Amino acid sequence: MKSYRKELWLQVPTRRAFINITPQIQECLRESGVREGLALVNSMHVTAAVFVDDDEKGLYRHYEVWLAQLAPVVATDPSDEDTIGEDIYDAHMKRQLLGREVVVAVTEGRLDFGHWENIFYGEFDGGRKKRVLVKIIGE
Amino acid sequence: MKSYRKELWLQVPTRRAFINITPQIQECLRESGVREGLALVNSMHVTAAVFVDDDEKGLYRHYEVWLAQLAPVVATDPSDEDTIGEDIYDAHMKRQLLGREVVVAVTEGRLDFGHWENIFYGEFDGGRKKRVLVKIIGE
Amino acid sequence: MKSYRKELWLQVPTRRAFINITPQIQECLRESGVREGLALVNSMHVTAAVFVDDDEKGLYRHYEVWLAQLAPVVATDPSDEDTIGEDIYDAHMKRQLLGREVVVAVTEGRLDFGHWENIFYGEFDGGRKKRVLVKIIGE
Repeated sequence: MKSYRKELWLQVPTRRAFINITPQIQECLRESGVREGLALVNSMHVTAAVFVDDDEKGLYRHYEVWLAQLAPVVATDPSDEDTIGEDIYDAHMKRQLLGREVVVAVTEGRLDFGHWENIFYGEFDGGRKKRVLVKIIGE
Repeated sequence: MKSYRKELWLQVPTRRAFINITPQIQECLRESGVREGLALVNSMHVTAAVFVDDDEKGLYRHYEVWLAQLAPVVATDPSDEDTIGEDIYDAHMKRQLLGREVVVAVTEGRLDFGHWENIFYGEFDGGRKKRVLVKIIGE
Repeated sequence: MKSYRKELWLQVPTRRAFINITPQIQECLRESGVREGLALVNSMHVTAAVFVDDDEKGLYRHYEVWLAQLAPVVATDPSDEDTIGEDIYDAHMKRQLLGREVVVAVTEGRLDFGHWENIFYGEFDGGRKKRVLVKIIGE
């Protein structure tokens, strides 16, 4: 069994953004030499998501509005002793709705995707360097 | 390491539906000959979900209403240059809430499930042939 | 290829709770002897979630309120012939929002996590013994 690991570094200048990372994952797969197996791609941060969706700008403009409705910014009380002291609860919630990770089949050395499938990184607390983990196992 | 791949084709006549695909996945597992490993089952379309839940009709009647509330049909403006031009944003959102994929343990040649676990396909933009990917790796 | 399986038993006295199960998963990984591979951790029940998030009390106090808003208790009609007869639809919905499972990379014999990543069990229908499945494959 072959095993491959790589960290991708991303620095999103804005608070929130959606970025297609499919080309970087394809490059990892080439480096790995794996022909048949599974590729795990996950955010290493609890305020960012990795998910599969269409590469279509209008969709993400709608996602921005939709996530703001389903997971609005939470008013916190700084006097609470168990608060994390930062206004990022909504970032955790938005990330849970889109998910931490995707597992993609690897077949004949390629990501085994349907026509519109792309791997996206969803940032909800940007402005600093963050990591995505790529782990590929197989033969 | 053994590796198995199959596409399941589904054609749902209605716009939306929930279908138990556990029997087809069990048949794939038998064909694969894998006794110990992991089975990935994912939608190959960005407007359909694969998830695990109870096989109970009343539940899906409630899911239909619940998803319509959390991810209602979005009014789009055809003059937007970056719109995909179809009224399917809500289908993307409903699919994100239930998820693209499940990974199931394979133990002694069977799907290693709790008593009420079943694999469901959730269609949110039906009326045409669509695919589910089954990839099984192990020994 | 090595393969390891274990069931973790949890009994949550309250209806709902969030429990950090990372130490138990690390112990499973040690027992497995796997150095490179993938670890699947999933709820075996359809009214409980397994997900990754920060180990921070205030976050889960906010999650409790947030999930009650997004997936409130559903009024059911006992005369419906297809109802499951229990007031637990909301537990299914809450679990779908946080997810059934996580897949974690195993690298050099450890869970390959970012700094704030922990594996949590989310209970939405407690008061009885329930199971989490840990399946680890690799070398």
